Amino acid sequence: MRVEVVNTGTELLLGKVVNTHAGYFGQELFKLGLRIQRQTTIPDGDEIRTVLAEAFPRTDVILITGGLGPTSDDITREVVAEMLGRELHLDQAILDEINDLFRRRGYKMNRSNDRQAMVPEGAFVLDNPNGTAPGLYLPASEADSSPHLFLLPGPPRELKPMFSELVYPKLAEMRQVELSSSVWRNFRIYGVGESSLAADLEPRFASIENLELGYCARLGEVDLRLIGLEASVEAASRIVRIEYREDIIGESEDPIEQVVLDLLLQRGEVVSTAESCTGGQIVSTLTNVSGSSAILHQGYVTYSNEAKTEILGVPADLIEKHGAVSEEVVRAMAEGCLRVSGADHAIAVSGVAGPTGGTEEKPVGTVYIGIAGKGFETYAKRHFTPADRISFKLRVTRLALDLLRRRLCGFVLEK
Amino acid sequence: MRVEVVNTGTELLLGKVVNTHAGYFGQELFKLGLRIQRQTTIPDGDEIRTVLAEAFPRTDVILITGGLGPTSDDITREVVAEMLGRELHLDQAILDEINDLFRRRGYKMNRSNDRQAMVPEGAFVLDNPNGTAPGLYLPASEADSSPHLFLLPGPPRELKPMFSELVYPKLAEMRQVELSSSVWRNFRIYGVGESSLAADLEPRFASIENLELGYCARLGEVDLRLIGLEASVEAASRIVRIEYREDIIGESEDPIEQVVLDLLLQRGEVVSTAESCTGGQIVSTLTNVSGSSAILHQGYVTYSNEAKTEILGVPADLIEKHGAVSEEVVRAMAEGCLRVSGADHAIAVSGVAGPTGGTEEKPVGTVYIGIAGKGFETYAKRHFTPADRISFKLRVTRLALDLLRRRLCGFVLEK
Repeated sequence: MRVEVVNTGTELLLGKVVNTHAGYFGQELFKLGLRIQRQTTIPDGDEIRTVLAEAFPRTDVILITGGLGPTSDDITREVVAEMLGRELHLDQAILDEINDLFRRRGYKMNRSNDRQAMVPEGAFVLDNPNGTAPGLYLPASEADSSPHLFLLPGPPRELKPMFSELVYPKLAEMRQVELSSSVWRNFRIYGVGESSLAADLEPRFASIENLELGYCARLGEVDLRLIGLEASVEAASRIVRIEYREDIIGESEDPIEQVVLDLLLQRGEVVSTAESCTGGQIVSTLTNVSGSSAILHQGYVTYSNEAKTEILGVPADLIEKHGAVSEEVVRAMAEGCLRVSGADHAIAVSGVAGPTGGTEEKPVGTVYIGIAGKGFETYAKRHFTPADRISFKLRVTRLALDLLRRRLCGFVLEK
Repeated sequence: MRVEVVNTGTELLLGKVVNTHAGYFGQELFKLGLRIQRQTTIPDGDEIRTVLAEAFPRTDVILITGGLGPTSDDITREVVAEMLGRELHLDQAILDEINDLFRRRGYKMNRSNDRQAMVPEGAFVLDNPNGTAPGLYLPASEADSSPHLFLLPGPPRELKPMFSELVYPKLAEMRQVELSSSVWRNFRIYGVGESSLAADLEPRFASIENLELGYCARLGEVDLRLIGLEASVEAASRIVRIEYREDIIGESEDPIEQVVLDLLLQRGEVVSTAESCTGGQIVSTLTNVSGSSAILHQGYVTYSNEAKTEILGVPADLIEKHGAVSEEVVRAMAEGCLRVSGADHAIAVSGVAGPTGGTEEKPVGTVYIGIAGKGFETYAKRHFTPADRISFKLRVTRLALDLLRRRLCGFVLEK
C-alpha cells in the first residue's frame, strides 16, 4: 500500500514553522509497517491541484494537511471535489457545531466560515473537537481512478487527535492488520548502536516467520520495532529482553524522563539535581512530565565554583586540586546535593560543553556524571560525548537519566 | 526566480529525524526575497529520477540534499549526470582529499568511496571541509532544458557551511541582488501579534518604494524582515524603531537569551533564577549560549513549597496565605533569589503548567513572574499563557527573559 503526504501551508516553506506533520505521520505509519513514499510541501493556493493530479495515479492513499480553513487560499476541499466531479453540499450539523463554537468563544460568524461546513458527495466527515473545520475522508474510487483521500486540518493540536482516533484505525483496516492477530511492539534501548543491534539480533530472528523489524536511532537511544503475528513478536521480544535486559528503557515510546518518573513513583522516592555543564537541562527535562512534582522537590544549577562550594558544600580545595570537571568534584557534587536536598537520589554533572574551554586533557565533550543515593555507593565516572553545545546538553541529560534508571531498576552501574 | 527543494533520505520519512533542511533553506532564501515553491522528500534510491524529471520544466533552481555518499542507494550524482547526458570523470584532487581525510581519521579507504570523487562534465565542485563528498553545481543549460542544480550533502553540519559560503552568494548573484544597493534587516519583536504589526505598519510604509516585507511569528515573537534598497530599508527601520522601541529584542536573528547575555556582559552583571513551573527551562535556555558562565553563577529550581522556604527564604505562612502561585510568593521568590545568590538580577516564576492542578481562580496557563534587581523595585505580575505543558514552559521562559531584557534596556516594566 503506497502512502503519500501532501502538506499545504505557505508558513511551512518560510522556515519558521517546522513541518512536524511529516515526522508524525512517518512514526504512526511505521507502526502499521508502512512507509511514506513521498512527502511534498506546497504553498496555500492553486498548487494543490497539480500535486494531486500527479499523485493520483501512483499512490493508494494521500494524507493532505491544511487548506480547509475559511480564508480565500484554503481551497483543498473545493479542488478535491472538482477533481472528482463531486457536488459540494452544506452539512447543517457541521454548520450548527461551528456556530455553536463561535458563540461559546464570543466570535462573530461570518459567511466565509460557511465553507467549512461544505461536504463533497460521498465523503465521510471526520469530527474535529479541537477546531472548526472537520476533516474529510473520500474512499478510493475506481470510476475516478482516485486513491483514498484524507483531508486533514493543519494545526497539530487538531490534526493529531483526528489522525489517531479516526484515520489510523481506517488505515489499519485497509492494511488488513487484524489487531487481534498482528501486533507491534517498540523496544526503546539506550547505549547500543543501531548497526550493532541489527548485526546482533537479525541472525537470531532468522527462524522467526512473519516478523518485520524497524529501527530508529536518536541521541543515544534506538527504537526497535517488531511487527507481525503475536507469536512471532513474542518470540522475538523474549530474545531482545534477554539480550538487552539492562539497556531497555521500556517496551513503549515513553521518553526516558517518563520512565524515571514512573520508577521513582513506584518506590515513593524523590531525586534532586546538581548541574554544571547541562545548566538546568536535566531538571527541565524531568519537569516536562506531568506529575513530576511528586518526584522532584528542587534542583540546583551550580555553574560557578563558588556555587558548587556554597550550595553543595564541595570543598574549595578539592576544586582547586582536581578542577571543577573531575571525578572527585562530581562525586562531591552528587553527595552534597543528596545531603542538602534531603532527596533519595541525586544526579550531578560537570563537563566541558564548548565551544570554548576544552583542553588537551579534557577536550570539549568531556563530562563527569555522578549518581548518589541513600544506601548506594556513589557512582562517578568520566564520559565523552563531543557535539555542538545544545546537542551535548541533550545527550548528557539522556545519559544521566539513563544511569539513574539503571540504578532504580537494580542494575549495577559499571565503574 | 522559482526555487524547489528536493530532500532525499529514507530516514527523513520515518519520522525520527526532523527535516531541518527545508526550514533552513526557507529562512535563507527569504533574505533574498525568494520563496520555496515546492519541497519534496523522497526515500534514497530511484525516486530521484522521477522527481527531477517532473521539476525540470517548472523551476529555475533545484536544491537537492543527500544521495552523494558512498553507499549503493546514494545515486543523485549518477542520476543527474545521466539525465543531462554528461560523462562522469574522476577528479584526482577530490580523491586525494578524501584519501587524506581517511588517513587522518585512521579509516581504510575502500573502492566505493571513489564514487564521491566523480564529477559530471561541466559541473563546479563545491568544497566540503566538513565531510568527504563535495557538493556539485550544474548551471542551467538551455540545451538540456535543465534548471540550475545544486547537489548538496545531507548532514546539516556539512550542508549549512557549504550553503552559506558557496550556494547563497551564487543565488544572490543570480537574483541580481547587488549587495551594495539592496539590503535586508530583521527586527525581532516580542509581545506584538503578527497581524496587528502588519495592520499598524503597512499603511505607514505605503509611501516607501522598493520595500518588501516578511513576517514570521513564533512563541510570542515576530520576525519582521525588510528587504529592498538601502534607503528604503532605512526609512522603514526608523518607523519600526520609533513605533516598537521597547518591544524590539534586536535587529538581528539572535535569540532572546543571546540578547540578555550581551546586555548583562555590557553591564558586567550576573543573573540568577528561581523557577517553579518552568522547572529549569529558563536557566537551561540561558546556558545554551556560549559564554553564559560570565553572567550566571547559579540557578534554583524550587518546585516544592518547602524548597521555596528553605532555599529562597519565602515565609511558609506567605505560601499558606496566598498559595504558591501568587504575586506575593513570586515576589518573595525573586527577592530571596537575589539575596541568597548575590546576583545583580533575579528571575522568579510560579504557575500552573498543567495538564492538572488548575482551579477556577488559577486555571492551567496562569503564571506569576517576578523580576528583582539591585536598585530596582521588584516587578511581580500575573500573566496567562494557556498551552500544553512543554509549550507553556517555553512561552513563560521567553516572557521572563523578555521582561529582564526590558529592564536591562532601561524600560519601565508595566505594573
